[in-house]
Amino acid sequence: MNIIDELIENFSRLPSIGNKSAARIVYHLLKQDAHQAKTLAEKLSVLHEKIHSCTICGAFTEEDICSICSDERRDKSIICVVGYPQDVNTIASVSEYRGLFHVLGALIAPLEGIGPDQLRISELIQRIHDGNVEEIILATNPTIEGDTTALYVQKILQSLPVKTSRLASGLPVGGDLEYIDRLTLARSFSGRINFNEE
Amino acid sequence: MNIIDELIENFSRLPSIGNKSAARIVYHLLKQDAHQAKTLAEKLSVLHEKIHSCTICGAFTEEDICSICSDERRDKSIICVVGYPQDVNTIASVSEYRGLFHVLGALIAPLEGIGPDQLRISELIQRIHDGNVEEIILATNPTIEGDTTALYVQKILQSLPVKTSRLASGLPVGGDLEYIDRLTLARSFSGRINFNEE
Repeated sequence: MNIIDELIENFSRLPSIGNKSAARIVYHLLKQDAHQAKTLAEKLSVLHEKIHSCTICGAFTEEDICSICSDERRDKSIICVVGYPQDVNTIASVSEYRGLFHVLGALIAPLEGIGPDQLRISELIQRIHDGNVEEIILATNPTIEGDTTALYVQKILQSLPVKTSRLASGLPVGGDLEYIDRLTLARSFSGRINFNEE
Repeated sequence: MNIIDELIENFSRLPSIGNKSAARIVYHLLKQDAHQAKTLAEKLSVLHEKIHSCTICGAFTEEDICSICSDERRDKSIICVVGYPQDVNTIASVSEYRGLFHVLGALIAPLEGIGPDQLRISELIQRIHDGNVEEIILATNPTIEGDTTALYVQKILQSLPVKTSRLASGLPVGGDLEYIDRLTLARSFSGRINFNEE
């Protein structure tokens, strides 16, 4: 097996890349000068060293504290709780939301052996205790795992002096936050349902 | 711009990867341990150093002479002429063809400024002169560029003592007449095979 076949195999292991696409990519890189492949290689090799979790919200960042948590202009009284670090970027880039975030790091999925104890829930409670948080918006994926997680977190937060809500109207059931369009996301923010009032 | 966004941009420049897929790939890599990204990085960084053109046929290889050209069991009297190095792998992996290959390196495309002088045609003539080549199969893509190139090469080889042929164009096996484009159908008519001659 030569390096072309090895690279094709490596690329085809990545999500959304099949065998044919992987071959296309490798031959494309070979056709270009070495610069493009080298740049990609350099960035890939330092990815895990450079990126770690924000000590406050758990989003990916190159600093100790991410740019959102350290942004003084953001509304610190609202925390949007998401499942995965990439959800922070999705929401921050396509919506008008100006509050803070909290990444749970996973969604409850008993079949995959992911229980509530693997979620960053105690950190969330700590943040509520520490600061003047008034509202928690649960923005986990509108899937079974996401809904279960939202329900679980909401139950835990019930005794705390915060308003909790869940993104609702607009999100297509079974979808994935990563692929939501801007308008749908905006509507789900404005139409969020208050748990206490339900 | 942090390294995640940089990498997403780098990935999205590759063929068949859009912005969303690129993001998916980078977050997937971050979720895995560093090993997968590092392996990919290492291979990408040495790709251009390790791979060069076979001095005989022009296909990609890690050696001076590629595994096909140095394979003693292959029929050295037939050369299959293709446009690009990757075409060698495609034909070698999916067909029963047991002869040699010759990579032109490009297809004639006047609009892109690619003329016949940029093709490895003199090397092909040299190979015909040198060895006991009996047949040349022109297997360039069935596109305008590929057809033009095949016609051009065929004219040049006319005066040489070799048989030249072109891969048949027509209905793909297992295909459906309903979904065949008009040019392919037209060509399958003009290239129809007479039962009596078979």
